[in-house]
Amino acid sequence: MGEEKLPKVLVLGPPTCFSTLQPLYSHKFNFLDLKTSGLPLHQFLISHRHHPSTIPAIFCSAAYSITADVLGLFPSLRLVVTSSVGTEHIDLHECRRRGIQVAGAGGVLSEDVADAAVALLITVMRKVTAADRYVRTQDRSDAWDFPLGYKLSGKRVGIVGLGNIGMEVAKRLESFDCIISYHSRHKKTTIAYPFYSNVVDLATSSEALVVCCALNNQTQHIINRDVLLALGKQGFIVNVGRGGHIDEKQLVKCLIEGEIGGAGLDVFENEPHVNEEFFTMDNVVLSPHSAAFTVEATLSLSELVAGNLEAFFLNKPLISPVKLVE
Amino acid sequence: MGEEKLPKVLVLGPPTCFSTLQPLYSHKFNFLDLKTSGLPLHQFLISHRHHPSTIPAIFCSAAYSITADVLGLFPSLRLVVTSSVGTEHIDLHECRRRGIQVAGAGGVLSEDVADAAVALLITVMRKVTAADRYVRTQDRSDAWDFPLGYKLSGKRVGIVGLGNIGMEVAKRLESFDCIISYHSRHKKTTIAYPFYSNVVDLATSSEALVVCCALNNQTQHIINRDVLLALGKQGFIVNVGRGGHIDEKQLVKCLIEGEIGGAGLDVFENEPHVNEEFFTMDNVVLSPHSAAFTVEATLSLSELVAGNLEAFFLNKPLISPVKLVE
Repeated sequence: MGEEKLPKVLVLGPPTCFSTLQPLYSHKFNFLDLKTSGLPLHQFLISHRHHPSTIPAIFCSAAYSITADVLGLFPSLRLVVTSSVGTEHIDLHECRRRGIQVAGAGGVLSEDVADAAVALLITVMRKVTAADRYVRTQDRSDAWDFPLGYKLSGKRVGIVGLGNIGMEVAKRLESFDCIISYHSRHKKTTIAYPFYSNVVDLATSSEALVVCCALNNQTQHIINRDVLLALGKQGFIVNVGRGGHIDEKQLVKCLIEGEIGGAGLDVFENEPHVNEEFFTMDNVVLSPHSAAFTVEATLSLSELVAGNLEAFFLNKPLISPVKLVE
Repeated sequence: MGEEKLPKVLVLGPPTCFSTLQPLYSHKFNFLDLKTSGLPLHQFLISHRHHPSTIPAIFCSAAYSITADVLGLFPSLRLVVTSSVGTEHIDLHECRRRGIQVAGAGGVLSEDVADAAVALLITVMRKVTAADRYVRTQDRSDAWDFPLGYKLSGKRVGIVGLGNIGMEVAKRLESFDCIISYHSRHKKTTIAYPFYSNVVDLATSSEALVVCCALNNQTQHIINRDVLLALGKQGFIVNVGRGGHIDEKQLVKCLIEGEIGGAGLDVFENEPHVNEEFFTMDNVVLSPHSAAFTVEATLSLSELVAGNLEAFFLNKPLISPVKLVE
């Protein structure tokens, strides 16, 4: 089939996995990549003779805001597929109003994100990045004299958001004999871990917090100064959710003042801008929103995205639909 | 009791935990720290009026060789306590011949060393140290473009040396759904993990190897070029045993040639000298022989060392005796 006859999918971002997806599935879909064109959205559509009404599906990353305005440009749009677990960048109300289905990453990234959460936690507690810098830059005539780290095994860890990812984090940390408790919107009746309705209480009872909830009005700055002070001087925080979960200004302040022990951060309030004050801190581990970025996850995600697109164009149920709010 | 009346313990190294041990137990033992004196051993003994025959016990680190010559200096020596799990730095035959008991770290460091092994494995596979360097030094006007890492969860991991530490590593990696197999001197009848008598075969079947055996004539360079080539271009190796387990020259060569995927190294053949060729590699994570160095482990170890010393001076059985070879 010629490219012109293939179903059109507008690619916005593009998501990291697009470079894997495109060569595998360009015989099935006509991917229109905005970024490659170097044009603004309106001009791209005109210049490529793709009338907005010919676009039935969008594939986007979490970094591209799918606002009511964007949705309004495409009268025939019926599907938005995002490469992310989170959907805070998509106006789900407007999707519902317009009869547009939404598909997300489902659970295919949960293991990798949980692995990354454990990696950040153990790295910051055991000073792995600082140790690596130390060995690479030490004065080679001296004996080693590197500060002690903190033990992960047996620690009390509070998980903020016990969804797929939170459960995978808990499973891993249990093997380190960590004592797990959690905060969620609601207590989960099938889960035996102690539940805290209040995040400050969870922080008070925990030696480390792992943030892996969805970002919404209720969870914006769920980690504020009070939570950080409750976590305490030898407490550690990891964020693999979204930058908006943590009041970053207060986090920086607490780190400078020694009010918390350290932080492992995959996400930031103003990505890809990162507060420069972190850069001089040895008790902070930073990663570029890459918790889900493995070769294996990228391939799984590409297959899932293609599966959702195929299902949609065949009028079948989506594989990993996002529930649209009432 | 005056210091002069307390039982003498000659401290050689000193072990990292000595700075924790000394303030806690200097009311019970007269610690004679060679390092603090800044003198060679013979001169130290003369200058401090500590005749060699008045020294019943030595406390040493793994970095201090307790040779037959050293043992021969102390006619009344009856105990050597090492702060390490490994005892390759102590002439155990000579200890046995002279009726000198030896105590080691027993199992108190196993959890921390296992935590460190998992930390090194996940850090090198997920490029955590490289990501941290990337975020700290990126051109801030650009979008992030960091290379994909490799997934840890579900990988086939071979453990070289399934003692206390190896078992703790296996327990942790099982929670990542890793598939464990192992090499040891002998097949363990109570363990269900597949056993490989040949390390090359284990490497061929594994996507990662974790080395945590004791160093002796049989395990010196147990990881040679053949093992590394069998592990392969997307294989990872972690060493929390001793530097001598890996043929470091061949490891560097394999890394330069891209014959293996990466390495996480806590120990080196010529510590504290580290091969400078590692310093430019992003797929290598380095730590300064600190796998057991946590605040918690240091305290536990101090208590164990003091417990062994007390038991010895009360003529009771040692808490964590090292079996002396026949």
